[in-house]
Amino acid sequence: MHTDPADYVREAIRSVPDWPKPGVTFRDITPVLQDPRAFRVLIDIFVYRYMRHRLDLVAGIDARGFILGAVLAYELNLGFVPVRKKGKLPFRTVAEEYTLEYGNAAVEMHTDSVRPGQRVLLIDDLIATGGTMVAASKLLQRLGANVIEAAAIIELPYLGGSTALRDTGLPLYTVCSFNPDD
Amino acid sequence: MHTDPADYVREAIRSVPDWPKPGVTFRDITPVLQDPRAFRVLIDIFVYRYMRHRLDLVAGIDARGFILGAVLAYELNLGFVPVRKKGKLPFRTVAEEYTLEYGNAAVEMHTDSVRPGQRVLLIDDLIATGGTMVAASKLLQRLGANVIEAAAIIELPYLGGSTALRDTGLPLYTVCSFNPDD
Repeated sequence: MHTDPADYVREAIRSVPDWPKPGVTFRDITPVLQDPRAFRVLIDIFVYRYMRHRLDLVAGIDARGFILGAVLAYELNLGFVPVRKKGKLPFRTVAEEYTLEYGNAAVEMHTDSVRPGQRVLLIDDLIATGGTMVAASKLLQRLGANVIEAAAIIELPYLGGSTALRDTGLPLYTVCSFNPDD
Repeated sequence: MHTDPADYVREAIRSVPDWPKPGVTFRDITPVLQDPRAFRVLIDIFVYRYMRHRLDLVAGIDARGFILGAVLAYELNLGFVPVRKKGKLPFRTVAEEYTLEYGNAAVEMHTDSVRPGQRVLLIDDLIATGGTMVAASKLLQRLGANVIEAAAIIELPYLGGSTALRDTGLPLYTVCSFNPDD
């Protein structure tokens, strides 16, 4: 019997109903991370996908994107760059705002974190409405990065983010997908 | 000529004066992370230190501790557990409060993130006053973890945190140390 690595990861994800609010089901990756075998399978899916992409940097989104992004950067011998929530970075920064359900938020990067033309993979744990991921990709492009692909473990297609991101022309790779009833 | 790995890392750390407030110098690890060679040297210092410790889990503190902790967990074939700021985890949680300069904060973990007796390494990027690290170690112990050691890249001994943590009986390993005038 053959187990597909993506199915193995998907089955280890925990669905928590009514979090962060009633009617919403949160997809929790902590059971994947804390199981050494599932964690390894998860990372290796990304390693095998990107080992031939001749990347220069992995940019991980604050905070769960740091977990995947840092391991992937190390495994592929690349640098790691954090895309942070506003106000966390101490040096010269650039920011990109985006809209949330109520109000605005912004992602921020150091101006010297990417050199023009560097080939960058953008990674987060999940893409829902896509606001953070789209803002992060714009920010990387403003810094002159050549964003090769965006990646996440999970996409929630019914929230439209994965479509919105692909509509910007940036390829998006995800390991698995959940619908509201899953 | 021999370069000590710890010196190599220390020299790549950027000191940013007057951040987050006047008179404080912030030690910024982002130049280490974004340089593939420095990043590798940094991680390998921890890998070689812990490869014989027969650990079960690495617990990384939100958010920069995720970067180190996740890579180390993967390299050592261990699970990774996030110690998060309050309100980020969706499942059943336990929290531990600690005191900041102005007011309180708390760290939180899933109740099922550690099994009693598991051998855990606790890791963050920096230990300053030690509040977060001490609270995280208490939380792990409440969950029944056997916390083997705490580790960070940087310690700031003049802020007293590294001494306070060692006074609790938990060994602390750091790669390098900075004084106010460095």
